[in-house]
Amino acid sequence: MPAETATTHGYTATKDQLLKRLKRVEGQVRGIQGMVDDDRYCIDILTQISAVQAALDKVALGLVDEHTRHCVMGAEGEEREEKTEELMAAVARLMRRG
Amino acid sequence: MPAETATTHGYTATKDQLLKRLKRVEGQVRGIQGMVDDDRYCIDILTQISAVQAALDKVALGLVDEHTRHCVMGAEGEEREEKTEELMAAVARLMRRG
Amino acid sequence: MPAETATTHGYTATKDQLLKRLKRVEGQVRGIQGMVDDDRYCIDILTQISAVQAALDKVALGLVDEHTRHCVMGAEGEEREEKTEELMAAVARLMRRG
Amino acid sequence: MPAETATTHGYTATKDQLLKRLKRVEGQVRGIQGMVDDDRYCIDILTQISAVQAALDKVALGLVDEHTRHCVMGAEGEEREEKTEELMAAVARLMRRG
Repeated sequence: MPAETATTHGYTATKDQLLKRLKRVEGQVRGIQGMVDDDRYCIDILTQISAVQAALDKVALGLVDEHTRHCVMGAEGEEREEKTEELMAAVARLMRRG
Repeated sequence: MPAETATTHGYTATKDQLLKRLKRVEGQVRGIQGMVDDDRYCIDILTQISAVQAALDKVALGLVDEHTRHCVMGAEGEEREEKTEELMAAVARLMRRG
Repeated sequence: MPAETATTHGYTATKDQLLKRLKRVEGQVRGIQGMVDDDRYCIDILTQISAVQAALDKVALGLVDEHTRHCVMGAEGEEREEKTEELMAAVARLMRRG
Repeated sequence: MPAETATTHGYTATKDQLLKRLKRVEGQVRGIQGMVDDDRYCIDILTQISAVQAALDKVALGLVDEHTRHCVMGAEGEEREEKTEELMAAVARLMRRG
């Protein structure tokens, strides 16, 4: 992960940024539990779920960025080949959602 | 939401089932925070995020099912028209993830 | 499908509108073949593929809308139950893309 | 693009393989037009659209693989930085479908 003080751009995320986003997602998921418990209108709950999925996608893209820049590019030969395959399989799973 | 004791099939989910799934998602998100904190391998963390996305999709489908069966079909005329539009907008957001 | 002259709103689409969108998608796919043949820059080709997927999603939403309004709501009892399950399975496939 | 005779693995695709897949997608889209024209059951048409989406995903992954292995890894310094950003933006669009 880039240093805390690094100015990140695009999809790059520091460890601290990823942890903050995940903490927020955790709170959003608890909020959705509350909405279900209170029998809130389905559509409003679905809107929150879509927001959580978009937030998780952003975390995922930060990790894909990290893996590409450091794990893949930091490796050579057979190891780089392997890490590229892992990258592609991860992107495929994210596109297919599971 | 169908009664707790209702035998559900397909995508229908009882309130209790939705809450259990959301509780599990909350735990998974905390688990992902731990993996990031421990600098675990990006690909392993991405695998967990894809699992959370799939679990959230299942919760969302339960709510889409609920909205279709009760809110849309329980309404008539203009109100049914409105709730159908809301259903379609929710499905579009889920397909586009955000 | 709603009559050709029907004013559609939201996701509802007439048969003619669906056919026009699909014709355009067909042309876009041929265009992508040309870009691959000409060894155009991967990112530009990927941008076109994302545009085709968004267009196909729009066609799909038109059909989900059609199925909900006519097939599901036009049926009763056991048949409506069956068509609702089919609707949910189709939405799940679209969310998971395949 | 890897040579025609190259044994590809994982997501890597030769130019010829990409063109064949795209040709098949073109035929599938024409097939869907026929189904709409014949007023075939919406759910059956939706099943075909999901199949086309999955096929397009496969083409896209082949191009992401190509871009990663050749454009990104073949570049250095500022150019590699730029091509990595382009890769991430393309992956984000594919995840969001448009």
